[in-house]
Amino acid sequence: MERLKTGVHGLDEKMEGGFFKGSVNLVTGRTGTGKSSFCVSFLYEGAIKGEPGVYVTTEEMAENLKDNIKSMFNWDIDKLEKKKLLSFLYLEPIVPTDMKVIKDIGRILKIYIYDVSEKIERIVKKTKAKRLVIDSTTIIEMFIKDEYMRRVGIMKLVNKLRELNVTTLLAGNIQEESDALSMGGVIEFFVDGIIKLEFLPVAEEFKRTLTIRKMRRTDHSILIHPFEVTKSGLKIIKI
Amino acid sequence: MERLKTGVHGLDEKMEGGFFKGSVNLVTGRTGTGKSSFCVSFLYEGAIKGEPGVYVTTEEMAENLKDNIKSMFNWDIDKLEKKKLLSFLYLEPIVPTDMKVIKDIGRILKIYIYDVSEKIERIVKKTKAKRLVIDSTTIIEMFIKDEYMRRVGIMKLVNKLRELNVTTLLAGNIQEESDALSMGGVIEFFVDGIIKLEFLPVAEEFKRTLTIRKMRRTDHSILIHPFEVTKSGLKIIKI
Amino acid sequence: MERLKTGVHGLDEKMEGGFFKGSVNLVTGRTGTGKSSFCVSFLYEGAIKGEPGVYVTTEEMAENLKDNIKSMFNWDIDKLEKKKLLSFLYLEPIVPTDMKVIKDIGRILKIYIYDVSEKIERIVKKTKAKRLVIDSTTIIEMFIKDEYMRRVGIMKLVNKLRELNVTTLLAGNIQEESDALSMGGVIEFFVDGIIKLEFLPVAEEFKRTLTIRKMRRTDHSILIHPFEVTKSGLKIIKI
Amino acid sequence: MERLKTGVHGLDEKMEGGFFKGSVNLVTGRTGTGKSSFCVSFLYEGAIKGEPGVYVTTEEMAENLKDNIKSMFNWDIDKLEKKKLLSFLYLEPIVPTDMKVIKDIGRILKIYIYDVSEKIERIVKKTKAKRLVIDSTTIIEMFIKDEYMRRVGIMKLVNKLRELNVTTLLAGNIQEESDALSMGGVIEFFVDGIIKLEFLPVAEEFKRTLTIRKMRRTDHSILIHPFEVTKSGLKIIKI
Amino acid sequence: MERLKTGVHGLDEKMEGGFFKGSVNLVTGRTGTGKSSFCVSFLYEGAIKGEPGVYVTTEEMAENLKDNIKSMFNWDIDKLEKKKLLSFLYLEPIVPTDMKVIKDIGRILKIYIYDVSEKIERIVKKTKAKRLVIDSTTIIEMFIKDEYMRRVGIMKLVNKLRELNVTTLLAGNIQEESDALSMGGVIEFFVDGIIKLEFLPVAEEFKRTLTIRKMRRTDHSILIHPFEVTKSGLKIIKI
Amino acid sequence: MERLKTGVHGLDEKMEGGFFKGSVNLVTGRTGTGKSSFCVSFLYEGAIKGEPGVYVTTEEMAENLKDNIKSMFNWDIDKLEKKKLLSFLYLEPIVPTDMKVIKDIGRILKIYIYDVSEKIERIVKKTKAKRLVIDSTTIIEMFIKDEYMRRVGIMKLVNKLRELNVTTLLAGNIQEESDALSMGGVIEFFVDGIIKLEFLPVAEEFKRTLTIRKMRRTDHSILIHPFEVTKSGLKIIKI
Repeated sequence: MERLKTGVHGLDEKMEGGFFKGSVNLVTGRTGTGKSSFCVSFLYEGAIKGEPGVYVTTEEMAENLKDNIKSMFNWDIDKLEKKKLLSFLYLEPIVPTDMKVIKDIGRILKIYIYDVSEKIERIVKKTKAKRLVIDSTTIIEMFIKDEYMRRVGIMKLVNKLRELNVTTLLAGNIQEESDALSMGGVIEFFVDGIIKLEFLPVAEEFKRTLTIRKMRRTDHSILIHPFEVTKSGLKIIKI
Repeated sequence: MERLKTGVHGLDEKMEGGFFKGSVNLVTGRTGTGKSSFCVSFLYEGAIKGEPGVYVTTEEMAENLKDNIKSMFNWDIDKLEKKKLLSFLYLEPIVPTDMKVIKDIGRILKIYIYDVSEKIERIVKKTKAKRLVIDSTTIIEMFIKDEYMRRVGIMKLVNKLRELNVTTLLAGNIQEESDALSMGGVIEFFVDGIIKLEFLPVAEEFKRTLTIRKMRRTDHSILIHPFEVTKSGLKIIKI
Repeated sequence: MERLKTGVHGLDEKMEGGFFKGSVNLVTGRTGTGKSSFCVSFLYEGAIKGEPGVYVTTEEMAENLKDNIKSMFNWDIDKLEKKKLLSFLYLEPIVPTDMKVIKDIGRILKIYIYDVSEKIERIVKKTKAKRLVIDSTTIIEMFIKDEYMRRVGIMKLVNKLRELNVTTLLAGNIQEESDALSMGGVIEFFVDGIIKLEFLPVAEEFKRTLTIRKMRRTDHSILIHPFEVTKSGLKIIKI
Repeated sequence: MERLKTGVHGLDEKMEGGFFKGSVNLVTGRTGTGKSSFCVSFLYEGAIKGEPGVYVTTEEMAENLKDNIKSMFNWDIDKLEKKKLLSFLYLEPIVPTDMKVIKDIGRILKIYIYDVSEKIERIVKKTKAKRLVIDSTTIIEMFIKDEYMRRVGIMKLVNKLRELNVTTLLAGNIQEESDALSMGGVIEFFVDGIIKLEFLPVAEEFKRTLTIRKMRRTDHSILIHPFEVTKSGLKIIKI
Repeated sequence: MERLKTGVHGLDEKMEGGFFKGSVNLVTGRTGTGKSSFCVSFLYEGAIKGEPGVYVTTEEMAENLKDNIKSMFNWDIDKLEKKKLLSFLYLEPIVPTDMKVIKDIGRILKIYIYDVSEKIERIVKKTKAKRLVIDSTTIIEMFIKDEYMRRVGIMKLVNKLRELNVTTLLAGNIQEESDALSMGGVIEFFVDGIIKLEFLPVAEEFKRTLTIRKMRRTDHSILIHPFEVTKSGLKIIKI
Repeated sequence: MERLKTGVHGLDEKMEGGFFKGSVNLVTGRTGTGKSSFCVSFLYEGAIKGEPGVYVTTEEMAENLKDNIKSMFNWDIDKLEKKKLLSFLYLEPIVPTDMKVIKDIGRILKIYIYDVSEKIERIVKKTKAKRLVIDSTTIIEMFIKDEYMRRVGIMKLVNKLRELNVTTLLAGNIQEESDALSMGGVIEFFVDGIIKLEFLPVAEEFKRTLTIRKMRRTDHSILIHPFEVTKSGLKIIKI
């Protein structure tokens, strides 16, 4: 089974070498736990080896995200972008002009699932991306109110991503008071893997931590791993 | 009373030899706790002894599921499939073209219960299956919003499965923050048996565990049993 | 005051000799805690002494229930049934053809309360039953959505049962995460007695337990009593 | 300030001699904690001294209640009833023929508050009652769905009871999982006093207990008092 | 900054001398924690020094409140009322004849905010009140269902009270199971100060306690202060 | 990266010198935890160095806020205001004349997001402000009921604030019983930084504390810092 390195120093050895090729994975955590850093590390790892990657943002302007990345890491993002090894796409949320659209179930799937996946497919094909990030899927989950339809819609989105045959990270938000794995409570059942990021007390100090909560086709660590963010990237701390 | 072996090494002796023939059982747990592994082990146990089995998926493409199984176990799934000892059926969720359908109670039962059970009946009869898995029933539970109708619908589904006279495992999902036995909160009252899978701390380590939460007509263990997933199948760990 | 023995070995002495004649009692617990076993023991106790009893099921086919009982106890259920000392009635849930019915308050009472009690009255009179079980009342509670009307409906049902002058056990379901006494949160206020069944740790082991939570006109134990299910019936364990 | 003895042995000395004349008090607790016993003791205390009392039931037939009382206490209820010192009234709950009535706010007040209080006023005047029990007010609270209107309605009911100038006990139900003071969450703010009945562990045993949660115009105990139910009445246990 | 003494013995020294002039403060607590006693003490303190005060009740007849006060304290309320140093006003809750009114947002503000504040303004001006109590604001909060409109309405009410330039206490109710600061969850953000009353264990005994939860423009104690209610008024207990 | 000093003594050294230029930050906490003090300190710090700042209030009259500030700090607010280094703007909440407006999604964005940001843009440009406070954003969050639209609206508001290129503090309210980061549960995901204010026990005493919960582009302290409010400003207490 082909594996793609995660880009996080020390993590690949905890999961048989990385994410398996074509898998769809959820990177989830509360605000400020490092989800975007994790996701961009995954793309950077590929880009410097010549594998093109796409970063789709749904909740932030691409420019602002790039500024955040540049201030965090000593990486030449602009060069990689120019070489088409790294692409950014801002997928603006749909604002329906009238409420009826939202209540028409057939159109929800069309608008939000086919439409979103079509846009993603187009950029993936255009850039020949091997790695894909969608940050975040929360706004897509929130768009579909009906519990049954949300389940169907998210299932179809994940299945379409699998067909694209890129290895994908989906960034998910968790609310401060919640111990769930996603805000919509559905996506975690459809993805192949789940990485959960937290702030936890480790040896009397608060540390950023990372847990592999689920990883299909993979014999993976089930421990909580503290990690640090350095200028050259994320690093699992050995303990 | 005739018993069907579970296919999990060490489990049959904890429940008078296995599931009783024709029983309908729930295998439930949070995401990544091993429900699909458990269910496929049950079918594999029968298939290698010549008892045909059917795996109905409602939330995943059959191909993807087979890839997951192959990467997990050293089993020749393709050969068993060719011999018609193992069959896979993807039951696509219904997307009603308009919302009214969902509010028409009579049609809900028709669409979701009679229709689903008819499709299942057809493949069971065609393959002469003795063992059946439906993974998962969550989407069926979610389809019926009305608490009373959900109760009636699930009761009718379970009764129809009993009439088919195959021994059945239903895979159910539990949300991360919940201690319930199913997402819909109803199916657990109608099944004959419940196996609950968890991640629990055992002797200062997190282990996959299995508990027989209920098993009608059976004198069963009520302990929590740690188990491991090996290339040749699931194994209860003796402690 | 006339008392009817419970049929559970060791329980009568904890409650002045048994249920008082004509009382309506709730036997409640989570799934798999032994409610049906308790209820059938009560009927069996009467039947072998020549007191006819009726077991009304609302959520399970009568045949399946009988199979469960036979596999559990060394009792000749068929003979008692032939002698008309034990009768089984499956009360199929109503599926209204349209939703409006449910919103018409007057008809709710008619359909669900008068109708259900009429059917029960008929079989009680026909069999001259002295003991009655309704397993379960949950589906009746769920049918009535309006909190006020549920209260009125359940009150009327319990009052009608009292008029029949049979001693009655109502089996109630409790959801896994709940500490309530019933799913509808109402019936416990109208019954004369409540027996709560649980799985609880007793001396470092999990045991089935039984608590008399309420028993009008009775000086009763308020302790938690572990019990066991043997081939000859239920037995309170002395500690 | 004139005080009416509670009828519970040992309680009057904990609250300046009893309930103050004309006060409206809530006796609240989960099912089976002794609310009806407490309420009837209050009426009995008056009746044997020649003060007429009325027991209004809203959720139980008066006959059934009387049977419960007779089985509990060695009191000659029938004689007191014949002497018109004790009266029982079953106030049947209203079942509106259509749902609209419930949504018409003006009529809610009319039906449920004026109507109920008129019936109560009539029997109070007819019997010249000095003591009144309404068991329970829960069904009245449940009838009014709108939080604001429930507040207004209950306030008006309590004010009308105060005008009658009888000393009143209202019995309230609390659900098993709740620590509230009433099911509707409103009535506790309008009454003059609150007696809370519970089952609590006292010296390693479960005991019935009683707490004076609030008592206007009264310097009262704030301790938890265990009590027992004897054939001659309720008794506070000294500790 | 001008300060008005609270009327509670020992409290002024904990908050720079009292409430600042013109401030709007919330006195909040569960039922029976002494909110009305606190509020009337504040008015009494002013009245005996010649500062007129008004007590607006929204949930109780003024006569009943006065009886409560008289039974609690050795104060000549009637004399102060005759001298126009103490006035009582019962503000009857509005019962809309039809539900539409409540859904018309513009009218909600008109009815409940302008109307209520106009009535209050009139009596404040007529009596030249320097101190004002509104007991309670809960019914006003409950009247406005929409979370946004409740926020706007309560904000406008508090702003109007500030314009009147009287020092105001608003009594708020908290439900038994809640740790909130008000039932509507909004008013606490708009007032200048919050006094929270509780029943808490102090040195192995339950005591009435008082905490200054917030007090703008004031350096205040943040401790929990036990207090007692004596015939001559409320007193902070030194510990 | 250019940094703006926070105005809180001892805080800048915990976050690489202050807020980064152009960032949008959330200052959040329960009522009375010092959010307004924190926000005004940030503006004051700039104003005394000649950087104009604007304080937008949405829930309080500007005059009342200024009185609060003056009573808290020894600062010549009026002089700074006259010099146009400090400006105050009260943004009155919209009261739609009919409910339909709120349900028209397109108009929500127009009214609440474009309209609010236009007003803010105008004053920022007019005053050439470098620092901006919006106290609070809660009423904006509450205005948008739909979870999806709230997410879109808040995202657009934060993006527009970023375009203005002022460094911004948004004050957010948290309800007493909640551990969330905002009342609407959305804004925390879009801002660059989050400062959380609390009342916490520090060395057996309750203290005001401050935690940097998130700060993009910044290596920041993750400890809980007690602070005090003095006449000359807020000060982190060293421990």
